[in-house]
Amino acid sequence: MSVAQEFEAANANYVSTFDKGALPLPPARKVAVVACMDARIDVFRALGLQEGDAHVIRNAGGRVSDALRSVIISQQLLGTREIVVVHHTDCGMLTFTDDHLRTKIKDDLKQNVDHIAFLPFKDLKQSVVDDVQALRNNPLVLDVPVTGYVYEVETGKIVKVDV
Amino acid sequence: MSVAQEFEAANANYVSTFDKGALPLPPARKVAVVACMDARIDVFRALGLQEGDAHVIRNAGGRVSDALRSVIISQQLLGTREIVVVHHTDCGMLTFTDDHLRTKIKDDLKQNVDHIAFLPFKDLKQSVVDDVQALRNNPLVLDVPVTGYVYEVETGKIVKVDV
Repeated sequence: MSVAQEFEAANANYVSTFDKGALPLPPARKVAVVACMDARIDVFRALGLQEGDAHVIRNAGGRVSDALRSVIISQQLLGTREIVVVHHTDCGMLTFTDDHLRTKIKDDLKQNVDHIAFLPFKDLKQSVVDDVQALRNNPLVLDVPVTGYVYEVETGKIVKVDV
Repeated sequence: MSVAQEFEAANANYVSTFDKGALPLPPARKVAVVACMDARIDVFRALGLQEGDAHVIRNAGGRVSDALRSVIISQQLLGTREIVVVHHTDCGMLTFTDDHLRTKIKDDLKQNVDHIAFLPFKDLKQSVVDDVQALRNNPLVLDVPVTGYVYEVETGKIVKVDV
């Protein structure tokens, strides 16, 4: 059985208990979360979100430069007015460099990806600082509160990073 | 109180019941989900995910062209071998065009974003077909099972799209 088929079976359970009705399209709590795609982070549970509360943007590392299109749409068309950035301990982005991944892809897939920035980082806290500042300084992003956290995959705790 | 402060309070609850211990970095179920950032989709609950199971990549529309960096990292460095694409009913991406949003940003922010493709779509099912095919045809993406769904925000149900 593919994982997709397992998802269909699990979804039937979810549907059987679904009681949300027709929620509005704009997020009720007017916030966009930018978080890493890491499998260990259940953003809804970890931050106390309910269906309808918040935009949840996720990518490798939770990097904001790769989330800009979504942030602009979230603010300009759907009214969010706060941003929360979540990176985390034991992140895969700490384990490689652009050179390493580009060489692997050249060797394994025979493809040149020198034009892709994979956005790894060497310092976790600094990556949060960098991404919060990048949002604050981007003229395409509204002047709204931006808060950055490190999520500890070992404990489930979010720790605020001073920026 | 900012939403970020509300998240900190909710997170204290999550930490108090956290019982996952140290989970491995690579996703246990070897799958990457690409889904829309829409506030109404709780990807974990809707698909039956537990912490540690799957990469969850989310952006405006769940568009794969904007998820490519993350998919490559997921497959090349963290071993996922299946992809599930989830778009949804009542999506914001059905409500605008690039021209509309570019003009709004020019008017409101005095910024030119003609270089940004915001990736809206006019046909929901077709957007899933397009994105599943884009993954299957991309030489940077491994030849793995790719399944596409429409999530119904009204019912919580995922409906498979034949591609």
